[in-house]
Amino acid sequence: MDPDAVAKAFVEHYYRTFDSNRAGLANLYQEGSMLTFEGAKTQGAQAIAAKLASLPFQQCLHNISTVDCQPSGPAGGMLVFVSGSLQLAGEQHALKFSQILCSILLGWN
Amino acid sequence: MDPDAVAKAFVEHYYRTFDSNRAGLANLYQEGSMLTFEGAKTQGAQAIAAKLASLPFQQCLHNISTVDCQPSGPAGGMLVFVSGSLQLAGEQHALKFSQILCSILLGWN
Repeated sequence: MDPDAVAKAFVEHYYRTFDSNRAGLANLYQEGSMLTFEGAKTQGAQAIAAKLASLPFQQCLHNISTVDCQPSGPAGGMLVFVSGSLQLAGEQHALKFSQILCSILLGWN
Repeated sequence: MDPDAVAKAFVEHYYRTFDSNRAGLANLYQEGSMLTFEGAKTQGAQAIAAKLASLPFQQCLHNISTVDCQPSGPAGGMLVFVSGSLQLAGEQHALKFSQILCSILLGWN
């Protein structure tokens, strides 16, 4: 698979996990991973999964609009920029979102 | 300066250069830098500056809404996520934009 296809497959897996089994996101992060969410930094796989689980909505559905990726850094890393919309249960209008997913060697942060 | 302050200063410098002297952006990239713009990849400082110079608008003004940064990779890199609006000369409504700026060691890409 070419890098773009790998990135797209990972993005689909990430948001499917987010929407169906948010605690499972811990498996997609490592101890050195960092999440910056609306200005707040969280480090480590379990802490990141706890942060994402604590967001003030439960049922949600991500719809991906764009996935852009490019190589990053000297060690075969990949930088992926995702944009799309987030539909929350009981809300009429979807929210816009964007997120960076970044891999270093075999891990993502 | 702490990393967040460095990132904010760089972001201000980057968009001030974009808005006032777009060709000068070449100095903010390196030969190994890559730009992905709306799905199209461009590599190298001069090629990136030429790509940005070729965008179908001349006078523009970036207004920055958010700057989020976090360390990235093993070599002291920094990942910066920027969002804001882009006002084009002669257009009534500003466009929303977001961009990732990424540094590896002393260079940015």
